[in-house]
Amino acid sequence: VTTTYLETGVDLRAASDLAERIRGRIGSGLFGGFVPVWQLKAYRNPVLVSSVDGIGTKTRLAAQLGRIDGLGRDIVHHCVNDIAVHGATPLFFLDYLAFHRLEPAVAGSILDDIEAACSSLGIKLVGGETAEMPGVYREGCFDIAGAIVGAVEQDEIVDGGTIRVGDVLIGLASNGVHTNGFSLIQSLFSIDEYDTFEPALGASLGESLLPPHRCYFHDIQSLLAHGHVHGLAHITGGGIAGNLSRVIPAGLQAVVELPPAPPLFQLIQEHGVSTGEMRGVFNLGIGIIAVCDARILAHLPAGWVTIGSIRENHEYAERVVFTS
Amino acid sequence: VTTTYLETGVDLRAASDLAERIRGRIGSGLFGGFVPVWQLKAYRNPVLVSSVDGIGTKTRLAAQLGRIDGLGRDIVHHCVNDIAVHGATPLFFLDYLAFHRLEPAVAGSILDDIEAACSSLGIKLVGGETAEMPGVYREGCFDIAGAIVGAVEQDEIVDGGTIRVGDVLIGLASNGVHTNGFSLIQSLFSIDEYDTFEPALGASLGESLLPPHRCYFHDIQSLLAHGHVHGLAHITGGGIAGNLSRVIPAGLQAVVELPPAPPLFQLIQEHGVSTGEMRGVFNLGIGIIAVCDARILAHLPAGWVTIGSIRENHEYAERVVFTS
Repeated sequence: VTTTYLETGVDLRAASDLAERIRGRIGSGLFGGFVPVWQLKAYRNPVLVSSVDGIGTKTRLAAQLGRIDGLGRDIVHHCVNDIAVHGATPLFFLDYLAFHRLEPAVAGSILDDIEAACSSLGIKLVGGETAEMPGVYREGCFDIAGAIVGAVEQDEIVDGGTIRVGDVLIGLASNGVHTNGFSLIQSLFSIDEYDTFEPALGASLGESLLPPHRCYFHDIQSLLAHGHVHGLAHITGGGIAGNLSRVIPAGLQAVVELPPAPPLFQLIQEHGVSTGEMRGVFNLGIGIIAVCDARILAHLPAGWVTIGSIRENHEYAERVVFTS
Repeated sequence: VTTTYLETGVDLRAASDLAERIRGRIGSGLFGGFVPVWQLKAYRNPVLVSSVDGIGTKTRLAAQLGRIDGLGRDIVHHCVNDIAVHGATPLFFLDYLAFHRLEPAVAGSILDDIEAACSSLGIKLVGGETAEMPGVYREGCFDIAGAIVGAVEQDEIVDGGTIRVGDVLIGLASNGVHTNGFSLIQSLFSIDEYDTFEPALGASLGESLLPPHRCYFHDIQSLLAHGHVHGLAHITGGGIAGNLSRVIPAGLQAVVELPPAPPLFQLIQEHGVSTGEMRGVFNLGIGIIAVCDARILAHLPAGWVTIGSIRENHEYAERVVFTS
């Protein structure tokens, strides 16, 4: 008896074809997957900023609804946003795809989307790994992760260190739940509920949940050019408190006055999620929060709305609190 | 009825505690997770080289056998080796851990091992992501991936471009199957076979399969300092042909004279795997192959053995063939 890898559920030929395709799409630059540091010559004193992230169980719902076409943008934009909040410009990206069973059409679609997202942002896709692991992943399931490296001038790193009492919080609207809370969402709704038109959403639940994570890079760069920015937070898993608290220095407290959550979040909450849980999981309609000198209110850039302020934190309380 | 994330199988508090721990271990340097490019000032014209990889279903066997303590080194060494074959020195690393259910003790052990591996190689652990996805991963299963960035002088990039007829192939011994072929292996053996002492191995099968992937960085750096190196291949998934063929230029062919495979590979093959499948999946005892000017044979560095040579490839045949 001879056992082949194909029989155990791992199709090396499909993986190899896909790898060839990945390789074929990389290397159009002078050094292929290599990034010469002289490309940073426009910087005075560049610092590399990097991040790794995944898009969670959004992959599962997208696959079940047959709408995987935004997942590549999800991972690229998520990673870009994560370093953009430090003031960084993305340089290069690497993807990691892992499947129960490699489906070349699915993988190819995801790679097309990753490539398009990178291309539109001037990011070099320098590498990737595609794995097939029937023994680890559930049937029909896959995972998408990515790593990004960008650069920022050392004296222009945004890290919250200059935040002070009297600063204001301004927020930029998210375009949905992004990639967070999908395990919770999938425990609340049965698969046939996603295609029903929801009057409150003006669309079906599936159409409202799956649009790819918005890229905030250009909004953030414009705001930084505008000036007065002391700190920035990308609102991902952990919600506003979980993400904003990381940039609030000791001795200070952010008081958040949340606008009413968009209908999508209200609909989720109505299905039996507490306010505390909603706040700890979802962005509640705010994709990015900037902590700025109050002078920014004189000319608040379009798209940003005031959502709170910074005060002293005498009692070593939580660094982020809500007014209601 | 209120649904919490904990009830759906995602323990945000455990994730947050772990995230705090990760954050607590990062940032001991001047810029925390940031890597100033001036740290590359010793380079004349540095090029950044990066790679992303995973360790496949080795995680599953390690978890089943209760021996997860080497998995962190597996991912770090795998990534280091991937860029070392381009002549690069690793600079910084990011990890991605994804679980069916986050087990803090398991995650902590893996992170300890990642941290130790990075530390011993002078690599900065600049970030990481830990995800809990009960809907995507099988019960008790988890995945480990990582991304690495290193640097090499632009005029010292090793990419196989200078390989020519008459060059010799030299190989460095692997220390087992590394992280490849575990789906196949787990289809061949039942779980109770891993703890039985195997006379041919001088150990149990489990003890022979699980040692972490050897790090070849220092061996490669020594060889490069020795000179005469035209190309290097890290033998991972796809075996010798799959990995060596990527560095062989068009019009040339590598003829590989394989030494007898170590007992571990013989034992696997005896359980019903064809020679072709063995060659396409496993490293067969060779962890790294260097393609070198034949003058290297006059003073072959310790540990390296001759395993073939380069000839013309008139017939557009496979770029790698075996003599038997």
